[in-house]
Amino acid sequence: MTATTHDVVALGNAIVDVLSESDDAFLDRHGLAKGGMQLVDEAQARALYGDMGPGVERSGGSAANTAVGIAALGGKAAFVGRVQDDQLGEVFTHDIRAAGVTFDPPAAQAGPATARCLILVTPDAQRTMNTFLGASAEMGPDDVDPDLILSAQVTYLEGYLWDPEPAKAAFRKAMEIAKAGGRKVALSLSDSFCVDRHRAEFRELVAGPVDILFANEAEICSLYETEDFDLAAEQVRHEAPLAVLTRSEKGCVIVTETETQMIGAKAPEKLVDTTGAGDLFAAGFLFGLTQGRDLATCGRLGAIAAAEIIGHYGARPEADLKALIGGVLTVGLPFTGHRFRQIVVTMRG
Amino acid sequence: MTATTHDVVALGNAIVDVLSESDDAFLDRHGLAKGGMQLVDEAQARALYGDMGPGVERSGGSAANTAVGIAALGGKAAFVGRVQDDQLGEVFTHDIRAAGVTFDPPAAQAGPATARCLILVTPDAQRTMNTFLGASAEMGPDDVDPDLILSAQVTYLEGYLWDPEPAKAAFRKAMEIAKAGGRKVALSLSDSFCVDRHRAEFRELVAGPVDILFANEAEICSLYETEDFDLAAEQVRHEAPLAVLTRSEKGCVIVTETETQMIGAKAPEKLVDTTGAGDLFAAGFLFGLTQGRDLATCGRLGAIAAAEIIGHYGARPEADLKALIGGVLTVGLPFTGHRFRQIVVTMRG
Repeated sequence: MTATTHDVVALGNAIVDVLSESDDAFLDRHGLAKGGMQLVDEAQARALYGDMGPGVERSGGSAANTAVGIAALGGKAAFVGRVQDDQLGEVFTHDIRAAGVTFDPPAAQAGPATARCLILVTPDAQRTMNTFLGASAEMGPDDVDPDLILSAQVTYLEGYLWDPEPAKAAFRKAMEIAKAGGRKVALSLSDSFCVDRHRAEFRELVAGPVDILFANEAEICSLYETEDFDLAAEQVRHEAPLAVLTRSEKGCVIVTETETQMIGAKAPEKLVDTTGAGDLFAAGFLFGLTQGRDLATCGRLGAIAAAEIIGHYGARPEADLKALIGGVLTVGLPFTGHRFRQIVVTMRG
Repeated sequence: MTATTHDVVALGNAIVDVLSESDDAFLDRHGLAKGGMQLVDEAQARALYGDMGPGVERSGGSAANTAVGIAALGGKAAFVGRVQDDQLGEVFTHDIRAAGVTFDPPAAQAGPATARCLILVTPDAQRTMNTFLGASAEMGPDDVDPDLILSAQVTYLEGYLWDPEPAKAAFRKAMEIAKAGGRKVALSLSDSFCVDRHRAEFRELVAGPVDILFANEAEICSLYETEDFDLAAEQVRHEAPLAVLTRSEKGCVIVTETETQMIGAKAPEKLVDTTGAGDLFAAGFLFGLTQGRDLATCGRLGAIAAAEIIGHYGARPEADLKALIGGVLTVGLPFTGHRFRQIVVTMRG
């Protein structure tokens, strides 16, 4: 097995977010389910945009946010995704490269515009996302460079990209290359509605090639069609080698075949916008994992990165993440400077 | 004279800002004068963008920010400017309309892309701007609709648009229509480097058609080629009917033929980014003026709007400006809820 030059290669949608303050009445009027992500076509996107308030544009995309988070923490990350040769494509490409992530998008092509996600942020800091996938949905197996996949310890996939067929084929190709090369495969379930759409396939992936599963409470419950989180956690124990289940302010539960660890969330200085919380949690966790840290430390790193992102608008880090995690990575002083609301570690035989 | 349906019609560059955190070393390396605005061509913009950190896109443009500020304060504003039929043009058009400003851009055309301004924000909250004018510089006399000019009490022009020749012709046309219709003409000098480029013409405008002049300390001193602010203020008294001179944290000086009023600045809750401070000051002032308020109240309204904008990134208001100015507009209770650092009113005969 050759040495790796990247810690993580992330595959996902290449999206520019349009963030706008909104309220419950607006969501109701447009029939939008708060906290979820729905796919919209260009006409729907245009209609919704026309009715929204003024926006702010920031690069986004779930796995792309994770890649940027890993780079911000000091790791080496690459990203695979598809943009159009247009202004938003230029914005996305600039931002992810300027953040230190390897990104060599395929040459420009005819076809739909760069993806955008209209994100309505309500006063409770919840985000409701409406994604026009555009060029991003054109990603296919040809975009997956085997050398790039093999250059990374972990291949990270966002569940959102399971919607378009060519992207699904790209994901399968990436997984096969990674597994054949002795690399790890990580999957984020992304969204409970996304799990609803692809439950059977996601179940096969989790019980099959996936080494590390990321899911929040709603997603893991949806995967196993239960309302009982503990039941879902027990079920995933027997299917995935490592499952990292996030529960917002209740922290995360790390499940392996032989143990369950519960790590408290880090209270944010203020709660502004939850966009990207899961993405940055995954960034912290994967950064720790690829640095050879123990699972509890990985969970704490995820909690710190998530707390930073929900303290401001947008899903890309603004604070110096390396400085924020300083205490956690100091051997013997894991908690310096960090007040976790709750830390419980339960070992099971 | 027919009744007006707008308080202010603003003519200026239609720009999307790309804001990025930066530092003095970066400015030095690129030979950029801190606090200024320089025009760049597409190649220069591309090179600078490639070297910048990740950015956030927000609609901007000096006069456009002022129009949005007036609408946010409860006034009726219209904007005239030129965008391309591209993604950033769509962003600009959406944001200004969603803010309640009348904006009917001319139909799409062949030509350069929508203007963008690469804004480097240093830790001292100063902004250094690099503007690629693109489509904005294509504005010409045909873009000026006489009915729209006559629909507003005040026609407001940003000095920045004096750079491209066709825009200059558009400005002259707008001024002529406004004056012939008994409307007021307001001009912002925009930037001391801009004044350097157009001093003779700006002097003619100030002594001629301009009814209300907005300038900061550096700009008014540059206009009269003096380092003595008081001298410059005395000179403008004899040329413009009303000059509003802003001095950052020292507040503003309002000069008419017969009196000088000094209004203190409002200390911001925090100082984050000065982008748009002058634009929002003008918004507050013009809103007050078109509501028939006395000059001191206009100055206070400007100070409140400016304090809001420098407390966050970007040049478009985030807080509820109507609520912020509530106390100032309450007759007899002009200072309720507002702590101005200094209030001095000097009357001269």
